[in-house]
Amino acid sequence: MSLLVVGSIALDSVDTPFGSTADALGGSAVFFAFAGCLLHPVQVVGIIGDDYPVEQLERLEQRGVDLSGVVRAQGESFRWKGKYSYDLQNRETLETRLGVFADFQPRIPAEFRDAQFVFLGNIDPELQLGVLDQVSDPKLVACDTMNYWIQGKRDVLLELLRRVDVLMVNDAEARQLSGDWNVYRAASWILRHGPRYVVIKQGEYGAVLVGADGIFYVPAYPLEEVFDPTGAGDAFAGGFMGHLARTDDLSHDNLRRAMVFGSAMGSFAVEQFSVRRFDEISSAEIADRIEHFAELVRFDIAPEWEHVDG
Amino acid sequence: MSLLVVGSIALDSVDTPFGSTADALGGSAVFFAFAGCLLHPVQVVGIIGDDYPVEQLERLEQRGVDLSGVVRAQGESFRWKGKYSYDLQNRETLETRLGVFADFQPRIPAEFRDAQFVFLGNIDPELQLGVLDQVSDPKLVACDTMNYWIQGKRDVLLELLRRVDVLMVNDAEARQLSGDWNVYRAASWILRHGPRYVVIKQGEYGAVLVGADGIFYVPAYPLEEVFDPTGAGDAFAGGFMGHLARTDDLSHDNLRRAMVFGSAMGSFAVEQFSVRRFDEISSAEIADRIEHFAELVRFDIAPEWEHVDG
Repeated sequence: MSLLVVGSIALDSVDTPFGSTADALGGSAVFFAFAGCLLHPVQVVGIIGDDYPVEQLERLEQRGVDLSGVVRAQGESFRWKGKYSYDLQNRETLETRLGVFADFQPRIPAEFRDAQFVFLGNIDPELQLGVLDQVSDPKLVACDTMNYWIQGKRDVLLELLRRVDVLMVNDAEARQLSGDWNVYRAASWILRHGPRYVVIKQGEYGAVLVGADGIFYVPAYPLEEVFDPTGAGDAFAGGFMGHLARTDDLSHDNLRRAMVFGSAMGSFAVEQFSVRRFDEISSAEIADRIEHFAELVRFDIAPEWEHVDG
Repeated sequence: MSLLVVGSIALDSVDTPFGSTADALGGSAVFFAFAGCLLHPVQVVGIIGDDYPVEQLERLEQRGVDLSGVVRAQGESFRWKGKYSYDLQNRETLETRLGVFADFQPRIPAEFRDAQFVFLGNIDPELQLGVLDQVSDPKLVACDTMNYWIQGKRDVLLELLRRVDVLMVNDAEARQLSGDWNVYRAASWILRHGPRYVVIKQGEYGAVLVGADGIFYVPAYPLEEVFDPTGAGDAFAGGFMGHLARTDDLSHDNLRRAMVFGSAMGSFAVEQFSVRRFDEISSAEIADRIEHFAELVRFDIAPEWEHVDG
């Protein structure tokens, strides 16, 4: 099943207490592709400037990523510069230079238009809608968004919600969008506005899937070393969608598995700067991490419980 | 197996966006006892003033709680007054009147001294140590503490840690105690200082058990209505210890179950003001909630995963 991502392709300069990077690979489409391609081939649509280190993206082609939807335009690539607090809980954007991304108008190549699984990375919801107008009949569309669009393009975003199957946001975004501080009421609000599922990411705690058929909680993987949280959400999306495209199974139980693959990919992302960690991940390591997730939440109900009076 | 709690017995005045209470039952020993006694008889040691509404405590006696360790002293009962923010994420203490609690010197009645399971609620660590000097040979001792003692009585607290089996704290307390912002490194630090297990409570997200034999994560129960977070941590402790005392089984798998009972009791606590919710809980309702926890984290690993190349 073909899997398409449309999003940003950026150069990130990130400062954390543990080190810093300058002009490292970043952007939603990049993190999504690096994570997703470990599970399933990915088609990428995005834009880069003529200064982008293309040879670094080409690593992806060896892993089944189709970059033919990446347009190279004259001008500077999208650059983001950020600094994290000592505990990685907060980040400050020091600089955003849109460059060629300012004029990004996603054109989906003819050979990508029948994509069955589509992920709309966090870009202007008008552009996200434009992508949906170009794909023929996807089985599942998931999208991300952020506070900037929730505040500035609310109506367009609500129109988009009616056309997507899964909204993936963090808890602050879910609260802002719904106007409700309770995460589960916020999820119910979102489900009433279009999507069949909402995935609420809770950073270092985990993520929750809410749909009409139930609620599933996956914790974050326990890590004693976290280097750079940048891209964790997009890597999560790559794992989630990669698993669904690979298995072509939209059953509730398989969405649960997709959440676990998402959380696993998010955990890999934060273990190194940029996408570096994805260069060294084997199939065995993924399987091992998935098994650890199973162990992390494993419990059985005590049989003697039945005999206790309340 | 006898289960003893030593802690505060208070009158709470709580202001939340959903209403308020004045002089309602509160305190660590009270929340612990109301939750714990749904699973196992509880022995309580604490102090109340001559103004305490004793008849409200006596409800507990019908549920197998032994209040013979509760001393009634001349003077005012311990009172706490707090106000929660609109999203219940933050609370401000408006007033603390220690009353007779200021002179609390826990005396463990002779018939409680062979208690097998002991929970030391959040009081001065010197008093917590004093309790341990009075019990003969407990199988498991768990304790709580708070920022005030971590800062003000660090040395005594470290001495206490060497004598307890389980430390139960929230993530901010674990960070403050260890000086490490990473929750899992903080847990490792704590394990090096005495306890065999540490339970780190993460409020609306869940709680994690860390020991040499593994890590277990239990999410918070998904609730669309939360009225009053006061006492959730002590109710968690009541469920955790109540399950262990009832089953008299300290295996790793049973500690996992204890975490789930803890999270269930914490979820009941926040559904009503004070301890009101515990008046109406049946054995069937507990069993139902435990099953919901199992469903909340249930997933199986896709068998076809084995055949994928990374």
